[in-house]
Amino acid sequence: MRVDGKSYRSIWRDGKGTVTVIDQTFLPFSFVTRPLRTVDEAAEAIAIMRVRGAPLIGATAAYGICLAMDADPSDEAFDAACQKLLTTRPTAINLRWALDDMRRCLWNRPRSERAAAAYERADAICEEDVSTNEAIGRHALGLFMRHWEEKGETDRLNVLTHCNAGWLATVDWGTALSPVFQAHQTGIPVHVWVDETRPRNQGASLTAWELVSHGIPYTVIVDNAGGHLMQRGAVDLCIVGTDRTTAGGDVCNKIGTYLKALAARDNGIPFYVALPGSTIDWTLENGRDIPIEERDPSEVTTLRGVGDDGITRTFHITPEGSPSENPAFDVTPRHLVTAFVTERGVCPASREGLTLLYPERRSGLA
Amino acid sequence: MRVDGKSYRSIWRDGKGTVTVIDQTFLPFSFVTRPLRTVDEAAEAIAIMRVRGAPLIGATAAYGICLAMDADPSDEAFDAACQKLLTTRPTAINLRWALDDMRRCLWNRPRSERAAAAYERADAICEEDVSTNEAIGRHALGLFMRHWEEKGETDRLNVLTHCNAGWLATVDWGTALSPVFQAHQTGIPVHVWVDETRPRNQGASLTAWELVSHGIPYTVIVDNAGGHLMQRGAVDLCIVGTDRTTAGGDVCNKIGTYLKALAARDNGIPFYVALPGSTIDWTLENGRDIPIEERDPSEVTTLRGVGDDGITRTFHITPEGSPSENPAFDVTPRHLVTAFVTERGVCPASREGLTLLYPERRSGLA
Repeated sequence: MRVDGKSYRSIWRDGKGTVTVIDQTFLPFSFVTRPLRTVDEAAEAIAIMRVRGAPLIGATAAYGICLAMDADPSDEAFDAACQKLLTTRPTAINLRWALDDMRRCLWNRPRSERAAAAYERADAICEEDVSTNEAIGRHALGLFMRHWEEKGETDRLNVLTHCNAGWLATVDWGTALSPVFQAHQTGIPVHVWVDETRPRNQGASLTAWELVSHGIPYTVIVDNAGGHLMQRGAVDLCIVGTDRTTAGGDVCNKIGTYLKALAARDNGIPFYVALPGSTIDWTLENGRDIPIEERDPSEVTTLRGVGDDGITRTFHITPEGSPSENPAFDVTPRHLVTAFVTERGVCPASREGLTLLYPERRSGLA
Repeated sequence: MRVDGKSYRSIWRDGKGTVTVIDQTFLPFSFVTRPLRTVDEAAEAIAIMRVRGAPLIGATAAYGICLAMDADPSDEAFDAACQKLLTTRPTAINLRWALDDMRRCLWNRPRSERAAAAYERADAICEEDVSTNEAIGRHALGLFMRHWEEKGETDRLNVLTHCNAGWLATVDWGTALSPVFQAHQTGIPVHVWVDETRPRNQGASLTAWELVSHGIPYTVIVDNAGGHLMQRGAVDLCIVGTDRTTAGGDVCNKIGTYLKALAARDNGIPFYVALPGSTIDWTLENGRDIPIEERDPSEVTTLRGVGDDGITRTFHITPEGSPSENPAFDVTPRHLVTAFVTERGVCPASREGLTLLYPERRSGLA
């Protein structure tokens, strides 16, 4: 997507083949890119959230394997790299998915070929992610158009989203924001209520930044406000991404998603989840079994911002020494989800729905 | 309550009779008191939230009338002062309640006696507020003890609260926090999940500050986290205050309260609202009819905090020029409220429940 009129992806290989990412910890205040030269740098980028979003975490992990194979193409090095990458973030399933994919690609391959094969596969994972997200957007656009028609094509189509499931969370396009970009291109007057998304403010920083860069109308709101806006009829639909979806249809996404899903249900507003097939965990039925990452409590007690002097700083917002807890995700039970939107189409949030779209998984916990 | 071991109220008259408040905009970083010398200063203190919380707004407005009568005890000055004070905050009903009370006190009284009578009545309003909140705490303590017994008196009693309904929101004791203070004194091992309460962070700043000052265990969480904690069994009960409660039982409180009430209902957790009779609006049946204050959008896009250099600053946290909206309250429908706790006891959140406790109101929309 566009940054100052120039096309970017969230991760790419530059002219010399160096893996490069946008360092999202600097957004929205500065646009900084960063090379990843070792698997350690890739793991660090995931762990401290220079890159985040389930699909982008997967792509970064794939390149992490490339960097490991560059340095040492042994089986031991591969296993060590997987271990290192797997422990960075426990909730996003795409991490495991990408590493399994890379393992299949490299297994039984001569060491001398491994680095090149790894890069080829990682590049392909990125290309697949882009077309997957474009397709998710296309299918969701159909839903947007239906709601827009039902509204009599008056006023604007008000979409509420939580966290950032935009192009910065993927290689390009995004999942939940893909139909927003496409609707805007199609001429549907879409307006986005952007949940701030404490503690890391991915909404207020990343989603707002993506939308302003593309000239799409949006309004930042605190995470507390969405329910009230729904009660007052100011939200036509909600759409969010997911870090892991169980085979049974439960949705693990950024902390606070569950509260918005409850409010949507209470007000009869559709609540969609946009997801690539890679975020489905076919080994789990129930969302309660998903490990929920507990992040550093200081993310709650501090925040980054720019002072009137133009300097970006970390500042403290609680009484000194305040204890805090920081669960990063919550689980929205399937019955609160109106439908899933995947690269293969729209389906109910249930095992039946998912296996209709992914029949190769019908055999069960494969 | 205590600040550095010394007893304070949130508003008082000093040795010379000067109305003095704690300037809450400096908390939790500095403890600053401030004299209010004119009705304009009282109105400003309410408008920019040096003082906030429905009961304290009422008390401050009462002293605002005293200051106006000090300067000019005419009917015209009284009306002008009422007008000035009424327009500061539209949602809290106690403002109107306190002004009506002062009007009844001063009406038909000679001008020469008005200032003295006003101070006498304002002082009495403060004393009544303190005993009201002590009584609310006593009644809610009974509920806390029942839940604690039901839990087998093991572990700790986990209370979730939103915003600040502590002593800083009243003259003393608080409403929702009154039973927390009393439970702690009684030896019940109470622990409070403190919702940060964006945008103005009254939880992370004021509630946390009150609790740390009294040695009561608490944990600050982002507003997004409460639903997840309820799903995981980490919350035994919720208790919040209210800025206005309709005669029908709907509760208008800080934005985001509704989301927590939905989550409590979804997880079978009791959701209590602590209120003095003065926050009941007997003229309204339905919460939809309560005017919701829209505050300055900059409260969403900026935040105050302390940098590592120890200096308190305002920080910008969204892309430059980001539009935002800032509704300050939402309405929790009566069916999500387990019970009201008033100074007269506990009752169902309904007209029937309220008129049982306030039978003098049975005649209808008086």
